[in-house]
Amino acid sequence: MKPTQLLFVFSLLISSFSMAQADTIDKKKFHFGKISDTSAGYTQAILTGNVLYLSGTVGRGATMAEQLKSAYTTIERTLKNYGAGFQNVVKENLYTTDIDAVKSSNEIRKSFYNGDFPATTWVQISRLFMPQALVEVEVIAQLPKNNY
Amino acid sequence: MKPTQLLFVFSLLISSFSMAQADTIDKKKFHFGKISDTSAGYTQAILTGNVLYLSGTVGRGATMAEQLKSAYTTIERTLKNYGAGFQNVVKENLYTTDIDAVKSSNEIRKSFYNGDFPATTWVQISRLFMPQALVEVEVIAQLPKNNY
Amino acid sequence: MKPTQLLFVFSLLISSFSMAQADTIDKKKFHFGKISDTSAGYTQAILTGNVLYLSGTVGRGATMAEQLKSAYTTIERTLKNYGAGFQNVVKENLYTTDIDAVKSSNEIRKSFYNGDFPATTWVQISRLFMPQALVEVEVIAQLPKNNY
Repeated sequence: MKPTQLLFVFSLLISSFSMAQADTIDKKKFHFGKISDTSAGYTQAILTGNVLYLSGTVGRGATMAEQLKSAYTTIERTLKNYGAGFQNVVKENLYTTDIDAVKSSNEIRKSFYNGDFPATTWVQISRLFMPQALVEVEVIAQLPKNNY
Repeated sequence: MKPTQLLFVFSLLISSFSMAQADTIDKKKFHFGKISDTSAGYTQAILTGNVLYLSGTVGRGATMAEQLKSAYTTIERTLKNYGAGFQNVVKENLYTTDIDAVKSSNEIRKSFYNGDFPATTWVQISRLFMPQALVEVEVIAQLPKNNY
Repeated sequence: MKPTQLLFVFSLLISSFSMAQADTIDKKKFHFGKISDTSAGYTQAILTGNVLYLSGTVGRGATMAEQLKSAYTTIERTLKNYGAGFQNVVKENLYTTDIDAVKSSNEIRKSFYNGDFPATTWVQISRLFMPQALVEVEVIAQLPKNNY
């Protein structure tokens, strides 16, 4: 094989490697003790670049107050896994079957944000994935650059 | 203290400063005459990097046409605060209690986009945060790099 | 005109050009055979930077199973247009009039993700843009850097 041919093969190898690289994005997943919920088919959180997307998060409990506290505690735990907190949350979407009940218990939600509130949208819907869920909260968080 | 020790302490100081930096993200908030609505607990808009997240925005008025015009005017005002316009909007989510009424008044909404339409999702829901609200619109806008 | 004046005019020209640049963002749109749906006023997908926003996507068919397969096939086609696939999807929002029916047909949805699931939120709402639609799915996808 001539040196020019060798160079050709070598450049092919390099370009195919680069293409494989270019097809892949970096996703840092977080779920509860496993990679994903393969039954329902979702992941609690995915970090790509420095943007962190959380799944709609529900809480345990019989009342709105209990479910809110539980849901935001789970969000806090998810954020912590990435070294983040509620100060990193830039967008919140809250879905509930009873928006007045969320308003009544809003102090619980607000305590997590510590006065540093995100852009948010609340809507009252018919039902959530879990039939007993009264509220489900999803957030987008921004992480500092070069943190990961 | 030996020069090497001094260097060690100095590098510790530098690294702790860098870590503090790394924990902070840059959020440029906009609200109406204040930083946030601390009662409901939200901010009208947050810019992080060059991505701008707006809260679900409602409008004043008794009819869908009036509320749509008012809501998109408020969105326009919010975008302008960041030197942006509807050409920067890449995603729109519209929540309404009457999707047929939004369709009937769609020309009002469309006039704001001037033919340059974003990716969008419209859903009909049970109610919004404000009981009298017929429609609530949230958008994500992309700002030019190095604009802020 | 003195050289200093010439320099001043020249620098004005440069700065106005830079400002024009700074006001523009790069949006790569995709729709079905045209730029946008100018009647409803939306674009199926917009890529800005390396973040791809898809509109809420519905499917054809009389049953949930048919509509799900059709909707995810359309999403797949949209992603492919950008050289992407479901491995690029980081966030999914699913809106349906019957969440139990989506659960029953979830295997159809899950087959598109091939075990690599995004962060997701499902909500049951009153109705969708198309009155016959049972389900509408929107996704955010992350593309590799320097891919576009």
